[in-house]
Amino acid sequence: MAFQSSSLIPNPTRRKPILTVLEAALTAVDPAKAVRAVLRREGQHLIIGEHRYDLNRFRHVFVIGAGKAGAPMTQAVEAVVGEQITDGLVVVKTGHSAPTERVEVVEATHPVPNTAGVEAGQRILALAEEAGPDDLVIALLSGGGSALLVNPAPGLTLSDKQQMTSALLACGATIHEINCLRKHCSAVKGGQLARAVAPATLVTLVLSDVVGSPLDVIASGPTVPDQSTWQDAWAVVEKYALVKTLPAAIVARLRAGLAGELPDTPKADDAVFSTSHTLIVADNQVAAEAACRQAHDQGFNALLLTTYLEGEASEVAKVVAALAKQVRGHGQPVATPACLLLGGETTVTLGAHPGRGGRNQALALQTALLLQGMPGVTIVSLATDGSDGPTDSAGGMIDGATVQRGRELGLNAADYLRRHDAYPFLQATNDLLITGPTQTNVNDLIFIFVE
Amino acid sequence: MAFQSSSLIPNPTRRKPILTVLEAALTAVDPAKAVRAVLRREGQHLIIGEHRYDLNRFRHVFVIGAGKAGAPMTQAVEAVVGEQITDGLVVVKTGHSAPTERVEVVEATHPVPNTAGVEAGQRILALAEEAGPDDLVIALLSGGGSALLVNPAPGLTLSDKQQMTSALLACGATIHEINCLRKHCSAVKGGQLARAVAPATLVTLVLSDVVGSPLDVIASGPTVPDQSTWQDAWAVVEKYALVKTLPAAIVARLRAGLAGELPDTPKADDAVFSTSHTLIVADNQVAAEAACRQAHDQGFNALLLTTYLEGEASEVAKVVAALAKQVRGHGQPVATPACLLLGGETTVTLGAHPGRGGRNQALALQTALLLQGMPGVTIVSLATDGSDGPTDSAGGMIDGATVQRGRELGLNAADYLRRHDAYPFLQATNDLLITGPTQTNVNDLIFIFVE
Repeated sequence: MAFQSSSLIPNPTRRKPILTVLEAALTAVDPAKAVRAVLRREGQHLIIGEHRYDLNRFRHVFVIGAGKAGAPMTQAVEAVVGEQITDGLVVVKTGHSAPTERVEVVEATHPVPNTAGVEAGQRILALAEEAGPDDLVIALLSGGGSALLVNPAPGLTLSDKQQMTSALLACGATIHEINCLRKHCSAVKGGQLARAVAPATLVTLVLSDVVGSPLDVIASGPTVPDQSTWQDAWAVVEKYALVKTLPAAIVARLRAGLAGELPDTPKADDAVFSTSHTLIVADNQVAAEAACRQAHDQGFNALLLTTYLEGEASEVAKVVAALAKQVRGHGQPVATPACLLLGGETTVTLGAHPGRGGRNQALALQTALLLQGMPGVTIVSLATDGSDGPTDSAGGMIDGATVQRGRELGLNAADYLRRHDAYPFLQATNDLLITGPTQTNVNDLIFIFVE
Repeated sequence: MAFQSSSLIPNPTRRKPILTVLEAALTAVDPAKAVRAVLRREGQHLIIGEHRYDLNRFRHVFVIGAGKAGAPMTQAVEAVVGEQITDGLVVVKTGHSAPTERVEVVEATHPVPNTAGVEAGQRILALAEEAGPDDLVIALLSGGGSALLVNPAPGLTLSDKQQMTSALLACGATIHEINCLRKHCSAVKGGQLARAVAPATLVTLVLSDVVGSPLDVIASGPTVPDQSTWQDAWAVVEKYALVKTLPAAIVARLRAGLAGELPDTPKADDAVFSTSHTLIVADNQVAAEAACRQAHDQGFNALLLTTYLEGEASEVAKVVAALAKQVRGHGQPVATPACLLLGGETTVTLGAHPGRGGRNQALALQTALLLQGMPGVTIVSLATDGSDGPTDSAGGMIDGATVQRGRELGLNAADYLRRHDAYPFLQATNDLLITGPTQTNVNDLIFIFVE
């Protein structure tokens, strides 16, 4: 991963070790490398994390999966398991396929699913059900998997589910409530794919794009236990008075579930999970720890503060600036040269007529305003997928002179920030980070470097 | 400082060492104790911080000052300097006076100054001007000092200055711009009190209520160099087109200054500062470091992250929750039992019809929502003056069961938070912190304790 960074220009000497740290973070969560890091062969044994599988035991090995990083993850599995893979199907976002040998990779639309996604979902479910007690199923999940692995429950159509989602968004339901209903109207989400795989042995490899890596949320948790129940689902319907708003087939299904006529999503004590293991191969924590190690190697006093960061970008920026000031003023929490690291994902609440930018560019520009004039400080806000908001930039990399550089060009940083138009400002001051698509996504990383 | 905390009730065992940490923080910034910590006698020598003053050298010792903590700071100076104090006058907020022996303490209104404040300001300026080359002046500044030490420049009235402030607030001027004009329309602010004191020796003791303790902002910096100029002041007038809005006397003064007819506020290289020293006796950093030491003594892995915290309370709370999750999930940045500490001051943007609460209570309740169900975590958000917003509570002290405790009482935490009504919720769940007035103010402290 090489940064074609406009940021190299203003201060190449200072920025070189910093770019090395960023590269280490992205390399650690490269989908193929991350899978290879947990997957290896010892003769006829397949070692996956802490687990050892004797391939001679299995009649078939199936590879299934969904998510934007599906193609390189599949390539990595093929490189290790090779011709012992019987069959497989992985669905990826349009434009994200790559050559594979034994596993079919199909493209579907994201975030709005299309019929290609539905067809792929049906074929993946069929493969899972085909797997028997002597078979091994390797499931590969990554960001976007929820929309890409779409499989409405019997009696429901894709249109029913889309109407349901629209109705839930319109009434202000929480993401937790929406997910509860989605799982109860799907044939695969909420552990139901694992139920289809059982009694075959199941190994799920996860590349997490959800802050905190909650397994039941990533790709809607098709292979892990679900905590939500038919009662929870119906409570959402009643809370927002949705009986007349939701499609009739959905209401009928939820009523039937509530009446005990349909099985609930499998819970933690369900036997289907007795032959199932899940491993996170890459997430924000993996990227952040790799960055910390590299920062240490580059001579920084490195400290990882959190990988659960959330909040409005402009306000989180104030905390980031406050941390930088403390290092500068008091050598706390670590002495200079310091590298503090926060991971997660912020949000930007856009007003009318927003300009160009993304949450990371907004955060970077806000910190540039708050730290203007401060020597020796560099703040990086990086979208690990290389695309921050609807832009071709991965984020921003600012210093105490960024605002002044803009001023000399006749640009007012506060005005650009207010208009949610950070991109052109940071472009003009050479403070944009450009990586191109990284083919992975483990949310964002924010670095505070103080010399 | 004893906490009469309702928070003691839900979990006394866990909370006792925590309250000990909070008490250590407040004790360290007690105004009298903080002054005593930097001030002592060695025979006829007065030791103030790093400096040594031979009292035999001085004909007079004057004590002047302004701020809410003026009375206990004066008592501490009297206890050390005693009858060698010639005369003195310190202005404090109504209700904040205390018995003194040689220095007069007068009360004035805050935040809107009254004529008592103006009279006190004139008398303090007269004392300063009376001091000669053989005299020592000890100035005591603390929060509220800017409004309490009010002294319009010659030709201006208190009403002129108040109209100016209203006009500046109405046009959306920044606090930096407002302070620039205030200093240039005052006879004492922006280093002008130091000019009046010169050539006498001047020692200023500061108890800071401004985040980051910028000396030129605390109490409007009457005894330290000012960076802003007549040109800066006039630029504000032009930027907001205030020539016709501001009182004519103000405009006339600013024009005269711009034309070089009036001296500017003294700059860093001004000779008046050659016999002047300033010492911060207490601020957020002092409180936070004392808390960290006590947390360490109580067995916590303590880490001070920042004392420059700013931002919207509800968003800062998300970062606080993210930090707690990382300690819990990964033992980072320190292992359990952990105490992470952030100092500064957040803000709350109120909607229509807000309920009861303050920024610290809002922050605490928001973290309670984000951390509900998490075992072993306690978040404290404390206003060091003992009064968080317009309430008699110093803040909140929540844990992972706070939201559930409310639910069992029929209270919905999210609803209370949305209505800016955290006080009654935290009162009901026994999560309010009650200290009573602490007579000091070094902003807020936020603690993240994880067992």
